[in-house]
Amino acid sequence: GKATSFRPLSENTVADYVQSVSHLAKRLGGSKQDWAVKEVGDGNLNFVYIVTGASGSFVLKQALPYVRCVGDSWPLSLERAYFEVTALQEHGKHCPEHVPEVYHFDHPMALFAMRYLAPPHIILRKGLIAGTKYPLLAEHMSDYMARTLFNTSLLATSTTEHKAAVAKFCGNVELCRLTEQVVFTEPYMIASNNHWTTPQLDEDAKSIREDDYLKLEIASLKSKFCEKSQALIHGDLHTGSVMVTQESTQVIDPEFAFYGPMGFDIGAFLGNLALAYFSQDGHTSDNSNRDEYKEWILKVLQDTWNLFKEKFLLLWTDKSQSMGDAYPAGVYTSLETHKLAQKIYLRDLFEDALGFAGAKMISRRIVGIAHVEDFESIENPELRSQCERRALNFAKDLLKTRSKLASIEEVIQLIRKV
Amino acid sequence: GKATSFRPLSENTVADYVQSVSHLAKRLGGSKQDWAVKEVGDGNLNFVYIVTGASGSFVLKQALPYVRCVGDSWPLSLERAYFEVTALQEHGKHCPEHVPEVYHFDHPMALFAMRYLAPPHIILRKGLIAGTKYPLLAEHMSDYMARTLFNTSLLATSTTEHKAAVAKFCGNVELCRLTEQVVFTEPYMIASNNHWTTPQLDEDAKSIREDDYLKLEIASLKSKFCEKSQALIHGDLHTGSVMVTQESTQVIDPEFAFYGPMGFDIGAFLGNLALAYFSQDGHTSDNSNRDEYKEWILKVLQDTWNLFKEKFLLLWTDKSQSMGDAYPAGVYTSLETHKLAQKIYLRDLFEDALGFAGAKMISRRIVGIAHVEDFESIENPELRSQCERRALNFAKDLLKTRSKLASIEEVIQLIRKV
Ligand SMILES: Nc1ncnc2c1ncn2[C@@H]1O[C@H](COP(=O)(O)OP(=O)(O)O)[C@@H](O)[C@H]1O
Ligand SMILES: Nc1ncnc2c1ncn2[C@@H]1O[C@H](COP(=O)(O)OP(=O)(O)O)[C@@H](O)[C@H]1O
Ligand SMILES: [Mg+2]
Ligand SMILES: [Mg+2]
Ligand SMILES: [Mg+2]
Ligand SMILES: [Mg+2]
Ligand SMILES: [Mg+2]
Repeated sequence: GKATSFRPLSENTVADYVQSVSHLAKRLGGSKQDWAVKEVGDGNLNFVYIVTGASGSFVLKQALPYVRCVGDSWPLSLERAYFEVTALQEHGKHCPEHVPEVYHFDHPMALFAMRYLAPPHIILRKGLIAGTKYPLLAEHMSDYMARTLFNTSLLATSTTEHKAAVAKFCGNVELCRLTEQVVFTEPYMIASNNHWTTPQLDEDAKSIREDDYLKLEIASLKSKFCEKSQALIHGDLHTGSVMVTQESTQVIDPEFAFYGPMGFDIGAFLGNLALAYFSQDGHTSDNSNRDEYKEWILKVLQDTWNLFKEKFLLLWTDKSQSMGDAYPAGVYTSLETHKLAQKIYLRDLFEDALGFAGAKMISRRIVGIAHVEDFESIENPELRSQCERRALNFAKDLLKTRSKLASIEEVIQLIRKV
Repeated sequence: GKATSFRPLSENTVADYVQSVSHLAKRLGGSKQDWAVKEVGDGNLNFVYIVTGASGSFVLKQALPYVRCVGDSWPLSLERAYFEVTALQEHGKHCPEHVPEVYHFDHPMALFAMRYLAPPHIILRKGLIAGTKYPLLAEHMSDYMARTLFNTSLLATSTTEHKAAVAKFCGNVELCRLTEQVVFTEPYMIASNNHWTTPQLDEDAKSIREDDYLKLEIASLKSKFCEKSQALIHGDLHTGSVMVTQESTQVIDPEFAFYGPMGFDIGAFLGNLALAYFSQDGHTSDNSNRDEYKEWILKVLQDTWNLFKEKFLLLWTDKSQSMGDAYPAGVYTSLETHKLAQKIYLRDLFEDALGFAGAKMISRRIVGIAHVEDFESIENPELRSQCERRALNFAKDLLKTRSKLASIEEVIQLIRKV
């Protein structure tokens, strides 16, 4: 029978568990002794098992009551599995093409099963480090963000639905607090979690801790993160939460989901593309030239925002979709007002996104706890720190000048200038 | 025994109910036949009974499952009584001087008992119409707003507490929707609830429905109202929700309470003072001169904001109070950054407050459903519409120019110029 209380699985016990859930067993075909179980969780938090049988497969993901990469000294709510599943299902409803289907959820066990994204799917971050191009990436990511964010906002829903959903996701507060800590707090103070390429970046890290103007920008972004329930955001949309092939783009791992500012998702993705860009000069030990690839990354960055904007506005203009309470049809009757309202909305969103992109870059790189493979894989510390410094300086510029940047093209100019 | 399901009381059945709740009966002293019950609800929504006995008294307020002034064709959740009690208790914790104590709450009956604010307490709006000065009004209201808003914000609480409280008050969505409808939607479209002094204000009402720029401002304020969970706000803080004497100021009726933008409360109060100001010229039929009184109202408006700001900053600076997650002490170490952060916060709040003040004035007056006695009590429609038009024009100016108004003194200049 099904478990009724939490019990951590391992490669050795997953098959027993699956056998006890008949529709999962059926999906694999054959019987227990034919099933292969492999733990592949490269993530920081959870355990991820690929389970394959004679006629089918799936991935089984289980949360543990602590942060995997730290251990039980850092407890973390099992409820994150519930919020991850709920977000996968809600986002999947709006964008099934780019969200893996959920097959099964066991609440007390804090585990769920979902579609196995088989090879050649790889984590986008790894693809970017390898220098692989994904021609549909901007098209797909803009699609995912436009549809999930628009459809969970007040542009598409009533305030009744909205408040109920906001209340539900308030329960994911522990994961929100983790973000608050590692993105908006620790990089700007002395904290034992922080680390950086030392001694090369010692001064850079110090200058961040002493940059009062930067801290004011961070305060206003943090207040948006904590107070603005604009849409159901993924909450951790970096390039490690996206799996890709040449034809497919799949967004996984929304365990940080809650009702927050849309710009946080957009900024996370754009900021991580910028990190990938700045790390490229560290990946040329094979004497390959990454210049063309760097241009491709910038093009993805540019296209993602421009396509996002286009698709978001299309949803808004499509009467069948824009049934939300934000702009009642009886009030916003003139076409010009509608257009102007959209312009203002997208402008505010752009500024939010650039701010969060900068904040995520700083925390993700250089000084915070959660570094990224883009840079970590550069072995020479001198070379690495040079890449990191440029990323950092761009992030700081972005945070401080975003209100004056008129378009994504100007952002890209800024990237080139750093 | 206590009721376990809802049953509407009346003047005739209140005493029976009270007798069944021994600690309430004890509070009155004597027995049932000695108790006097009087319904005094002049409000739009609920029933309010004054209950007096030999040795004590209280007020008993009961919600009905519909809007009192409309009837059962407009249903409204009984849960509003729960949110009213919860807000009275939470605000009362931070500001017991200006919030009546709650003695009793019966959830299924949607009723509660609270301190009776005995005469000479009267509703502030009535005092303002009568031309009575209240020397402590600005002092008290600034105190109430500073303490309730600061202490329920992330300046004073953790994000853990905050998210739990936000989730709870999401349940008050029906009351929020009422505000959305009558403040942010109906005045800007043709709606059967709307009415105004006709034909005098026909053109004014039309010009509001056709003012695209105004509608854009309203959209951004509505989005703040629906999405920004900054503090536990009263939600209906007009001059009809304040009872006063020369020495005492008491805020009642927070049934619209939820986590929303602080500026909504401040704006409601300041906007209603402005309405009182503009209505004064209609209250001189007795040939009395209201010029000095008008100056006093402006002074209250000015002092309320300036004192609010001062007190709010004092709470923020007081280390024992500012334990919230918004500005971690380890990050905001320098005094200058702290000061600058405060300046930015208060500037944003000022702009929000002015915007909501304008929005409330428009909905409250001239074109919306819920008019105010300040103007309704002016019998001559010609005179009334002149007062109303000035109020309306000020409100529109305020909405459109608030980002350029540097201080409350400039707001007062604007009032004088209209
Ligand atoms: N549906 C899936 N199909 C294939 N691989 C997956 C799937 N989900 C996760 N993985 C693999 O497991 C890793 C960790 O998954 P993730 O959901 O990011 O866990 P965590 O929350 O611990 O970061 C991913 O980087 C990916 O390699
Ligand atoms: N605690 C109280 N003491 C004295 N009178 C009160 C008290 N509470 C309400 N009242 C009277 O009842 C009226 C309606 O109360 P209110 O709470 O505003 O009800 P509603 O929600 O229907 O507007 C008030 O205007 C005031 O005259
Ligand atoms: Mg992950
Ligand atoms: Mg994860
Ligand atoms: Mg009332
Ligand atoms: Mg708050
Ligand atoms: Mg009321």
